[in-house]
Amino acid sequence: MADFSAVELIIKKREHGELSTAEIQWLVANYTSGVVADEQMSAMAMAILLNGMNRREIRDLTLAMVNSGERLDYSGLAWPTADKHSTGGVGDKITLPLAPLVAVFGVAVPQLSGRGLGHTGGTLDKLESIPGWRANLSNAEMHAQLESIGAVICAAGSGLAPADKKLYALRDVTGTVEAIPLIGSSIMSKKIAEGTSSLVLDVKVGSGAFMKTFDRARELAETLVSLGNDAGVSTSALLTDMSTPLGLKIGNALEVEESVEVLAGGGPADVVELTVELAREMLRLAGKGDVDVAAALSDGRAMDKWNAMIAAQGGDPKAALPKARESHVVVAEASGVIESMDALQVGVASWRLGAGRERKEDAVQFGAGIQLHAQVGDRIQAGAPLMTLFTDDAPRFERALESLAGAVTIGNSEPQARKIVLDRITK
Amino acid sequence: MADFSAVELIIKKREHGELSTAEIQWLVANYTSGVVADEQMSAMAMAILLNGMNRREIRDLTLAMVNSGERLDYSGLAWPTADKHSTGGVGDKITLPLAPLVAVFGVAVPQLSGRGLGHTGGTLDKLESIPGWRANLSNAEMHAQLESIGAVICAAGSGLAPADKKLYALRDVTGTVEAIPLIGSSIMSKKIAEGTSSLVLDVKVGSGAFMKTFDRARELAETLVSLGNDAGVSTSALLTDMSTPLGLKIGNALEVEESVEVLAGGGPADVVELTVELAREMLRLAGKGDVDVAAALSDGRAMDKWNAMIAAQGGDPKAALPKARESHVVVAEASGVIESMDALQVGVASWRLGAGRERKEDAVQFGAGIQLHAQVGDRIQAGAPLMTLFTDDAPRFERALESLAGAVTIGNSEPQARKIVLDRITK
Repeated sequence: MADFSAVELIIKKREHGELSTAEIQWLVANYTSGVVADEQMSAMAMAILLNGMNRREIRDLTLAMVNSGERLDYSGLAWPTADKHSTGGVGDKITLPLAPLVAVFGVAVPQLSGRGLGHTGGTLDKLESIPGWRANLSNAEMHAQLESIGAVICAAGSGLAPADKKLYALRDVTGTVEAIPLIGSSIMSKKIAEGTSSLVLDVKVGSGAFMKTFDRARELAETLVSLGNDAGVSTSALLTDMSTPLGLKIGNALEVEESVEVLAGGGPADVVELTVELAREMLRLAGKGDVDVAAALSDGRAMDKWNAMIAAQGGDPKAALPKARESHVVVAEASGVIESMDALQVGVASWRLGAGRERKEDAVQFGAGIQLHAQVGDRIQAGAPLMTLFTDDAPRFERALESLAGAVTIGNSEPQARKIVLDRITK
Repeated sequence: MADFSAVELIIKKREHGELSTAEIQWLVANYTSGVVADEQMSAMAMAILLNGMNRREIRDLTLAMVNSGERLDYSGLAWPTADKHSTGGVGDKITLPLAPLVAVFGVAVPQLSGRGLGHTGGTLDKLESIPGWRANLSNAEMHAQLESIGAVICAAGSGLAPADKKLYALRDVTGTVEAIPLIGSSIMSKKIAEGTSSLVLDVKVGSGAFMKTFDRARELAETLVSLGNDAGVSTSALLTDMSTPLGLKIGNALEVEESVEVLAGGGPADVVELTVELAREMLRLAGKGDVDVAAALSDGRAMDKWNAMIAAQGGDPKAALPKARESHVVVAEASGVIESMDALQVGVASWRLGAGRERKEDAVQFGAGIQLHAQVGDRIQAGAPLMTLFTDDAPRFERALESLAGAVTIGNSEPQARKIVLDRITK
């Protein structure tokens, strides 16, 4: 490999230069091995954040991160593979009903997930509220479960894209998270290394999302879709609304509960709609676009897959889920139609109740969170229950309520259904 | 002290925000103590480099770095104090004749200097070529020498502006050296902590200088002058030419030799002119603007001070200086007038001959360097000696000569005197 100087590469990007393929490969390989120091990579990350990267540089960065570790391979499976990645939202439990739903139709879903940090919660934290369920599988166990059941949701092993793991932790403490080249290469390096043959991205837009505006979300979605397709993964994206929470339940066990409602043919309309839309897109990319997705929710086939998937990882799908010890009801202050309910404020309140963690080493409370009794567009009477807060520690209510101040506006609009899918980005 | 988050401060500067006084104080204090990590400070340094700081922020940063360590105090001295700082150039030995020259007129010069890294050489490296001379003095020794002789050139103690020492080392490896807010606060924090009551800055412009263009040099000079005066130090700056080397000798012992020539009333016109101009400016700021500076060079008073200053630090001013073992003469390739002689190329050649160091822990060769036989504006004949290279290791000639390729142009211009002082910036 050619030899470069970290300082010279930083200065090149600082001066709005374009890094060559060889330079990016050198940088990522030497950062992974420790030759390029954290303080050099953080200066580079800030220069990338402020000065940008072109598509070719982002693609090289992504592939260099893929090549920093192992790459899984499902080409031996009898089924095609499809995966979904969400950029994260409040009440976003869609992965839970989606993976078994897609597997019903003979498309395998190898879903490698993470734990939550901050206000959006993590898929593994939610599933860990199911007694006995375990997140850590070997590659062989994962492969076997995909063959037997067709769906697996588990922790990403440390061998996938180690450069991304190291850089992600660094960005978190250096104010360099919000850069599209870095977000895009982080998401796609893991998904490409994971070995899925098709991928649907759920790029959230709004106060509760990473991308607050439609334009930024669209830019990210286009970057991700082109990175995936360039790397041979059939990739598309939905831009979906995250101005207000998704569904009625926010928290760990609470979101499992709501997912099971959807798998039983019920659940809130917005959660059902997004689950079905994402399943359709995944199946379309995997060559199965002509199936009746919604039927598998109402006839119990998706629930059967869910039960098998949870049981295969040691979980008891019939066991009672953890409940919080304390609850507090918030009532509507006025009569009218709920015109807005800020996703970020509700997400932070749930996090403060104990559903999320502040530091990586913290534990989450499985029963903590928020149950909404009405959503945006619904009519409500003054004094009627608006939401119930749950926690194991009553003193947490005060700071959660602070976060909720002004989060809900009630006005004179007409009731209306919510629009979830805002746009679709394909190759 | 108020409590802030390093990540939030980085993001604020990243988004073109203005850091408050309290935020800057918190950042510098916590970086010095290790609470703010190197990788956070390097991201902040890159954000400052790319997004800038206003004058108030730069002043706060400078004062926070001053307050990270001790502050010397010469208010008990019978004499006023004046100091000079140069941003560094090739052949810039001016500190050596300047400090004793100014002391002749009853103004004390407390000159804290550094060692060289890169092509410009360090004042302490030059003086250490004098047998017996030592750079490290205690604060008490320094004070006593200022009282008895009026001039001291020594190493800055580790207690002065430790935040700057830490940040300077970090900037060097993270591509964040070339930022005026960081350069300005680094220079001025040391000079303010050093306790001088007046200060003249020699801001170099041209290929051999840090600032390659007149506009950037002027911006730096204005920043430095306002920082000094705001902190109660009477400060002004000269912008001086560094497109071509200063004087005829470049190296450690070679520059001591040339300094002694100037102190003896001789020496190259450009070195004499700059020494006298800087001395006049220092004396003016210290309230002694009406003296005949040049007379003290021709009548031996400055040489007497030099001898006393060197002897007080253990040096033998009459001892023979180290000589290089090997020499190589470069001749003029054409006849005509020397139209340019690139300072950077000559500086790098001298550094490669062994006059400078590549890593902090390297030793310098005291005898290595370059003696010019003609300067820009002089007429020369083809085949006549243009410069002599000196080193202890003959194999070094090859890379030094590579650096000199194309460094000198000889043309048909008329011979002319060189303009050294390009501008003067006062409060």
